[in-house]
Amino acid sequence: MKNDVHTILEVPGFVAGAVAAGIKYKGRKDLAVIFSQVPACAAGVFTTNRVKAAPVLLDEERIRLARAQAIIVNSGNANACTGARGMEDARAMARAAAGALGIEESLVLVASTGVIGLPMDVSIIERALPTLAAQLRSSGFSEVAEAIMTTDTFPKIVSRQVGLDDKSFTVTAMAKGAGMIRPDMATMLCFVCTDVGAESESLQAVLEEAVAQSFNAITVDGDTSTNDTVLLLANGVSGLDLRDPACEQAFQKTLNEILSGLAHQIVEDGEGATKFVTITVKGAPTEETAKKVAYTVAESPLVKTAFFGEDANWGRIIAAVGRAGVPIAPEKIQICFDKVHLVKDGQGCGKELEAAATHVLKSRRFSVTIDLGLGPAKATVYTCDLTADYIKINAHYRT
Amino acid sequence: MKNDVHTILEVPGFVAGAVAAGIKYKGRKDLAVIFSQVPACAAGVFTTNRVKAAPVLLDEERIRLARAQAIIVNSGNANACTGARGMEDARAMARAAAGALGIEESLVLVASTGVIGLPMDVSIIERALPTLAAQLRSSGFSEVAEAIMTTDTFPKIVSRQVGLDDKSFTVTAMAKGAGMIRPDMATMLCFVCTDVGAESESLQAVLEEAVAQSFNAITVDGDTSTNDTVLLLANGVSGLDLRDPACEQAFQKTLNEILSGLAHQIVEDGEGATKFVTITVKGAPTEETAKKVAYTVAESPLVKTAFFGEDANWGRIIAAVGRAGVPIAPEKIQICFDKVHLVKDGQGCGKELEAAATHVLKSRRFSVTIDLGLGPAKATVYTCDLTADYIKINAHYRT
Repeated sequence: MKNDVHTILEVPGFVAGAVAAGIKYKGRKDLAVIFSQVPACAAGVFTTNRVKAAPVLLDEERIRLARAQAIIVNSGNANACTGARGMEDARAMARAAAGALGIEESLVLVASTGVIGLPMDVSIIERALPTLAAQLRSSGFSEVAEAIMTTDTFPKIVSRQVGLDDKSFTVTAMAKGAGMIRPDMATMLCFVCTDVGAESESLQAVLEEAVAQSFNAITVDGDTSTNDTVLLLANGVSGLDLRDPACEQAFQKTLNEILSGLAHQIVEDGEGATKFVTITVKGAPTEETAKKVAYTVAESPLVKTAFFGEDANWGRIIAAVGRAGVPIAPEKIQICFDKVHLVKDGQGCGKELEAAATHVLKSRRFSVTIDLGLGPAKATVYTCDLTADYIKINAHYRT
Repeated sequence: MKNDVHTILEVPGFVAGAVAAGIKYKGRKDLAVIFSQVPACAAGVFTTNRVKAAPVLLDEERIRLARAQAIIVNSGNANACTGARGMEDARAMARAAAGALGIEESLVLVASTGVIGLPMDVSIIERALPTLAAQLRSSGFSEVAEAIMTTDTFPKIVSRQVGLDDKSFTVTAMAKGAGMIRPDMATMLCFVCTDVGAESESLQAVLEEAVAQSFNAITVDGDTSTNDTVLLLANGVSGLDLRDPACEQAFQKTLNEILSGLAHQIVEDGEGATKFVTITVKGAPTEETAKKVAYTVAESPLVKTAFFGEDANWGRIIAAVGRAGVPIAPEKIQICFDKVHLVKDGQGCGKELEAAATHVLKSRRFSVTIDLGLGPAKATVYTCDLTADYIKINAHYRT
């Protein structure tokens, strides 16, 4: 049984909640806790940026234990580029959460999103925690999704329940967007809670596979933040376990769907975005080649600006393909906008098809398929357009 | 003796001119010819895009002869992605120019800039050529600079005369911009005329060195057009020759300065640009590393948008450094805006210095210096900001 993605399900054994601590924003929730009533198996995927925020460094260390019971997260301050003090502050956040929840400090994971380079005022967090801990509840996930927003325009949360024999497991995941490209503020954060049981190795593997086909297949311009974090807690309360191959298969499928759903929401909520574009490159010699070409096209400001202008400007696409740094044969390239086959053998197909392609671009969602004609491999990347509003939002973001 | 860069000098033995042929634009010059009265030694540097326009493919072939006497260039149509017919058309342009000028076809080089994927109407060019050939004159370079403009807002042309013993040589070069990133229309074209003599190998080497430190050190977002072309004709009329080491040294220096001047003009004329930013990365283990970091910063839409917003957002810069794909040590990074040392050991230096850095960003020109603290190598890249006008210009460019 599958629930509608818009129903937010409670996950047995988990409580959550958020408060307005006043870290940066006034009058909105900015501090959240997720708590598993029993220690859970934990897995994590973190930013590949070589400048890592303090909470990322702390989590990378703690996730090796593969056990966690709580996540504390704040918005408004990224606690990045904050040196030794930043590490102290991240630890202090964990310690304060552990104290309020009555658990070991090492079982607390930490995440932060916000401005880079400002020291945290942890006392604000310490003061807010007793109240927050007291009001955690099973239905609190949506508060977490709200508290982690920065310039997101809507909270991002997806739930699924899956029956297996006479039991069922539930997965609820919250995320916040990297909008378009926002390494300083729009960190991508995602927290997944489930009541399946798992061993650490398989849980990590399942998470990595799901991230690869979701968050790692969206782009806005290739920026990765200093704080990007995906955490998965699996508390085993359902009695189902990934050691059962049927359960593992069902869980992987569900997690893939949930993270893809969140990833697509992030693209749709891209800053100033008006288009959701699926870019597929096929006919590539290898998947790596296909991915490289897809990313080059998806990240070309010129291509993205043409999407915004609803201009079926295939010349910009083919020029991006040509500079992707992989061998291509221009005369073998086919390009389709949805089903309109606009470019055949590297050449345009005339005004009539171009008008049809322009019509495709008027939709809010459309696909661009590029066939390199060189092999069997393919890759898909999801992206949005580059708009005047994006510039407006980012030019004066901090001020 | 060095002339002011704004004086356009005639180059002995060269004539040039342009006409309004009506290729795309109405009532403006769009077809130009540069002609050396004697066959010249020729060198060329072309786009690294794997999708190359027909005139680029033709020139790459012809430049192997290292001899040329004329360049024919049009704006309004790039003759790219035009298949076998495009090659025919490029050859027909060369043939028509050769006929009008009374020289061998193989001595004619061709360049085009404009929309990708539209077949050329060569008959328009053939009809215009007799008139054009009849009006070529020594003072015609500025007409060429105008005729090759697309969305450039000013013609780009630089001249120098250098005395050597009792002789002197002259170099005049015209360019058009890749504005910001405009693979479909704002091809970078540059034509250099000089009266020094040269052997082909040394001429090519001198040109490549000059291009490396000028056009290959500017960026807007890494796009390279299908048509980028730099051609250098050296007709030997001055009696000076690159075989003389003193002459070679003087010519290299002059050519470096001239091409840098044009490259900077291209950045300044970037679409919608309001800032000219010099990004220097030093303290790198290798020059390649330095260049990679400098380009990643210079091409980050988020960094460029902050420049537009006059926001000294060093968090975006350090995050770009972190994702450049090279090993770094965050705690060793220093960042200066002009002389304001804003980031020390990977951390911000407080509100006062940030205010001073914000003041720096209010200038039209400023520099960002990033010291990685890891070695002796450095690299400099020139770029501009990303503005709302850029989006406006590019979203509706073709329509």
